[in-house]
Amino acid sequence: MINIALYGAGRIGCVHAANIAALYPRAKLTYVFDTNVATAAAIAGKYGARQSDSVEQALLDAGTHAVLIASSTNTHVDLIAAAARAGKAVLCEKPIDLTMARVDECRKVVAEARVPVQIGFNRRYDRSHRAVRDAVRAGEIGSLELLVISSRDPALAPLPYLRVSGGLFRDMTIHDFDLARFVLGEDPIREVFASGSALVDPALSEFGDLDTAMVVMKAASGALVHINNSRRAVYGYDQRVEAFGSSGMVQSGNLRASAVTRFTASATDAREPLLHFFIDRYAQSYVDELADFIGAISEQRPPSVNFEDGRIALLLADAACESARSGKAVPVRYA
Amino acid sequence: MINIALYGAGRIGCVHAANIAALYPRAKLTYVFDTNVATAAAIAGKYGARQSDSVEQALLDAGTHAVLIASSTNTHVDLIAAAARAGKAVLCEKPIDLTMARVDECRKVVAEARVPVQIGFNRRYDRSHRAVRDAVRAGEIGSLELLVISSRDPALAPLPYLRVSGGLFRDMTIHDFDLARFVLGEDPIREVFASGSALVDPALSEFGDLDTAMVVMKAASGALVHINNSRRAVYGYDQRVEAFGSSGMVQSGNLRASAVTRFTASATDAREPLLHFFIDRYAQSYVDELADFIGAISEQRPPSVNFEDGRIALLLADAACESARSGKAVPVRYA
Amino acid sequence: MINIALYGAGRIGCVHAANIAALYPRAKLTYVFDTNVATAAAIAGKYGARQSDSVEQALLDAGTHAVLIASSTNTHVDLIAAAARAGKAVLCEKPIDLTMARVDECRKVVAEARVPVQIGFNRRYDRSHRAVRDAVRAGEIGSLELLVISSRDPALAPLPYLRVSGGLFRDMTIHDFDLARFVLGEDPIREVFASGSALVDPALSEFGDLDTAMVVMKAASGALVHINNSRRAVYGYDQRVEAFGSSGMVQSGNLRASAVTRFTASATDAREPLLHFFIDRYAQSYVDELADFIGAISEQRPPSVNFEDGRIALLLADAACESARSGKAVPVRYA
Amino acid sequence: MINIALYGAGRIGCVHAANIAALYPRAKLTYVFDTNVATAAAIAGKYGARQSDSVEQALLDAGTHAVLIASSTNTHVDLIAAAARAGKAVLCEKPIDLTMARVDECRKVVAEARVPVQIGFNRRYDRSHRAVRDAVRAGEIGSLELLVISSRDPALAPLPYLRVSGGLFRDMTIHDFDLARFVLGEDPIREVFASGSALVDPALSEFGDLDTAMVVMKAASGALVHINNSRRAVYGYDQRVEAFGSSGMVQSGNLRASAVTRFTASATDAREPLLHFFIDRYAQSYVDELADFIGAISEQRPPSVNFEDGRIALLLADAACESARSGKAVPVRYA
Repeated sequence: MINIALYGAGRIGCVHAANIAALYPRAKLTYVFDTNVATAAAIAGKYGARQSDSVEQALLDAGTHAVLIASSTNTHVDLIAAAARAGKAVLCEKPIDLTMARVDECRKVVAEARVPVQIGFNRRYDRSHRAVRDAVRAGEIGSLELLVISSRDPALAPLPYLRVSGGLFRDMTIHDFDLARFVLGEDPIREVFASGSALVDPALSEFGDLDTAMVVMKAASGALVHINNSRRAVYGYDQRVEAFGSSGMVQSGNLRASAVTRFTASATDAREPLLHFFIDRYAQSYVDELADFIGAISEQRPPSVNFEDGRIALLLADAACESARSGKAVPVRYA
Repeated sequence: MINIALYGAGRIGCVHAANIAALYPRAKLTYVFDTNVATAAAIAGKYGARQSDSVEQALLDAGTHAVLIASSTNTHVDLIAAAARAGKAVLCEKPIDLTMARVDECRKVVAEARVPVQIGFNRRYDRSHRAVRDAVRAGEIGSLELLVISSRDPALAPLPYLRVSGGLFRDMTIHDFDLARFVLGEDPIREVFASGSALVDPALSEFGDLDTAMVVMKAASGALVHINNSRRAVYGYDQRVEAFGSSGMVQSGNLRASAVTRFTASATDAREPLLHFFIDRYAQSYVDELADFIGAISEQRPPSVNFEDGRIALLLADAACESARSGKAVPVRYA
Repeated sequence: MINIALYGAGRIGCVHAANIAALYPRAKLTYVFDTNVATAAAIAGKYGARQSDSVEQALLDAGTHAVLIASSTNTHVDLIAAAARAGKAVLCEKPIDLTMARVDECRKVVAEARVPVQIGFNRRYDRSHRAVRDAVRAGEIGSLELLVISSRDPALAPLPYLRVSGGLFRDMTIHDFDLARFVLGEDPIREVFASGSALVDPALSEFGDLDTAMVVMKAASGALVHINNSRRAVYGYDQRVEAFGSSGMVQSGNLRASAVTRFTASATDAREPLLHFFIDRYAQSYVDELADFIGAISEQRPPSVNFEDGRIALLLADAACESARSGKAVPVRYA
Repeated sequence: MINIALYGAGRIGCVHAANIAALYPRAKLTYVFDTNVATAAAIAGKYGARQSDSVEQALLDAGTHAVLIASSTNTHVDLIAAAARAGKAVLCEKPIDLTMARVDECRKVVAEARVPVQIGFNRRYDRSHRAVRDAVRAGEIGSLELLVISSRDPALAPLPYLRVSGGLFRDMTIHDFDLARFVLGEDPIREVFASGSALVDPALSEFGDLDTAMVVMKAASGALVHINNSRRAVYGYDQRVEAFGSSGMVQSGNLRASAVTRFTASATDAREPLLHFFIDRYAQSYVDELADFIGAISEQRPPSVNFEDGRIALLLADAACESARSGKAVPVRYA
């Protein structure tokens, strides 16, 4: 049984806590820490865990095998580093951090500690997106030539959140950058072009942010990747991946709560809006992500989505930011 | 070149006239007859044909190779018989007649005259329905076990038309009976059960008619067939065939004018209403039906849909009427 | 907290046990009984319940609030009666029994005991089928005129199971009869016609059973209902409901494990096979069914699907059996 | 009646000739010219037109009202200029020319001659794409924010054709540039980024061409446009437009020859490959394009798709070429 300490008892922390409980007896939630003491207590109580008074408490406990970091982004690198130094396995929500320098410092600590660190790119575990990757990897579509990712949030997040989010590319597109790499497999992205606008709320441009964007990337093989983003899709959370290759195409589509179709005098085949947001749309992915993390620890295999994956996604986001400013395709330097 | 005389210059007569013109120089419209002299003249003028003063004129002309009968149902058997006696090939709109005795009399004349007579079951030529039949015949779904036909008109025809229509089963379902036979191939229908209601307009029950019906038939092989009908589908002309077998299923779906899909806050994937009625929905089938008729004459092969097909469809309709009255499954006697 | 004793630790018993656990602390599994002692012990152990030595043990415990009957059909009425006499609420898998006389006897016991008895027609809780019912009830499609239910199992059950199953109509179609009633609402079915064949395995006809069937029913309003069944659909568990009315249509479609679509040189838009069987297809329905049962007990409201619903479904199945034999539409007598 | 002279009796010339014939008596094909005398004679014979010995013959005939230019691209500007000087209305296939300088010269001639010149951007007349434009213009999706065009040919054209085609952007993407402008309406494109590869046939890179490309463009409003192209889609001619806006989305999808769906043990809902290429996919658009051209002449209104539209599409193609070379977003200068 893997004993897990949870840092961060917000919305996504709750999802993880419930998923840990469902994996019992393979895993158990043992500690919960949150600066909001009440929410930490609530989750700890619900799942029979202890509420930590401090960050350190769980790390000092030799019975703690892993930590799950679901706190705010600015706390990630310090928590990863502390956990790594304490020899604990880590599952940390994306992004690692908004600043490459801080990521690189943390990277050294992780490398020295040799603990498994998994980054929370849950979409890799979504059954539909993963089936696209599997089909590509199995050669079902021949050589991958075009990859089109449509990724649109249902509604703009509050401005205070957006102000400290690191901007569209680091906060939202970062998932799509990772998903693109997941489907591309061994074919590294060489070049990033990005362009964006603040159309949903022009106020975003006051702090240099965008809410509507398009990206084009070229991989080493010559394969081309497109990502389009909006912060507001009125019909629901739009999450599609289309992989086109020399012998076919495979698409991952959207999910809805039911399979109902309506026919009236004005419309036919009409379906309900898409699942509203990531907690619902990606519910299954969070379960599988956690199971894979637990499995990696139990079987002493490296995590499937590692620190470097988190770092490269940020690299691509940084390149997109630069490109959106300069109007030029920006080469990606991985070293 | 096959010279064709057209009887009946109404809505469907116009469709046929245009289709004959498009087949030029394989075929040519040479005569048009209609009791409404003005409409006959209009069509004749448009396509360079002669307007007949009488039914006989075209039949007496040795240059007439075929007649296309698109006049009202009560004129069909007399026109078929006259044309057959004159040695002309016949393409006659369904149904042959509403009364089996009259059909059987006409059948003798046709048999003696040995002219090719094709009945206008145009749906057999619809690309989608035909693909279902082809798939079944090719063994794609293994043995056919269940056949489900949904066939719904967009709107109730006017009561005066309905009063003389022969009733739902002979006027509307007759197409579905034929389509069922088309998909069943060599497997004859042994038994018909039918049940119906007058829900669209209860006034229909005053003259013993129905506007909503369900049929279940059993074929010699044990395969089961279901037909459901409504005289009014607000979302358009609904025409579907589903053939289910031991190794798969094939469906023929509906057609729309465009491939547009809409997404709003209340609905996703919404498409436009179905093509409104048979002139649009089955436009392609009328073209192919005529080409097949012309081909049969030119190549001196028997027509693909013959007099007997028309007779059996009426036999099934009669059985359905009896079943709806008696509440019993009615055995079909073909002799 | 509602304490529940489980009778029957087979496949569906396990599903219920897990669902009870997930409802904690609203409900708790306290006893498990199964003639197979080992499987009872396994489930009891997994969820911290006691393994009963006898049927009576849990019923004698005043702390037991409800029993969930998931044992074989022939044990249902005795267990319902025993539980009812002990004053326990009951959730019993369908069918109540295969014999109307036994159902009617049990009905008296239940009536006297005045305990809530819910019958496990889980499909009523399926989000998609329920949305169809909700749309009909809300008047979205005007008056319901045609109801078409396609219900096909992925593969034939083993012959030993089928021999004692009560036959297709009582074992399989019974779910569809109930679903039809669910959508029809206050409009009672007046007449049942059924026809069937043994096409999947002709050996079934040796003991008078069918594996392929079609039903047509007429409701008091004149609305018509069609059900088609097969015991073997190679493409997966096919479960569809189509409700057609005076102002539109609403359909509930099939479910798949992912939203992936494939395009090759020979096919486009191809999706994966349907979810294989009821445990997967109706997973969500079992959760909601149990929650509704727990809710009914907690809030002291009558269960949403009651003993009478179970009885009427059997009544319709019996009528279908009689019709398939006689070739006549059989009137339904509810008294 | 508009008398039309046809220049170019190749594949697309034949399509136009048949469409002119179908518009009779609103229009009539009077002359056919082609350097291949035999094909010119064949078409002329089929439709009762005269075969021209020279380019001039039809232009010298005062009875010629319009010319339809369907000859090879390098002849377009000379024919447009000659026809304009002769005072004839012109419908010219895209592109006007591959060189902006030649287009600008021709533009002067056209401006002086004041004859209506329509450029053959037939996709604007496709019912589905046009419905997208109509929905956007009607405000159905609010403000347009993202426009995604997927445009993929079924198979690579022969290398000799490609060598003189002007390259992917001028030969193929030019249709998509125009379609983007059609949907954008009054919102001009300000900036073009393009990136491409020769993946289908690396031999294309020998003469600097691409077969796989992605474009991102930004309009004055901040709306973003993406185009992706491939010269080879094994599943058929893939032509999709997706317009996303502040209150919804509208998509135009692909067309197939029938509405058949297949279900097997390995795939469900599988449809046939897409219509193979533009002659089939856009058949309806060519009919409507011609009717609109005839209408414009008859009603003396300016053509819906004019010379300037042809020129701007080339401007965007040139910008794309430059961007693909430089790796920079290229500003569009319309003057």
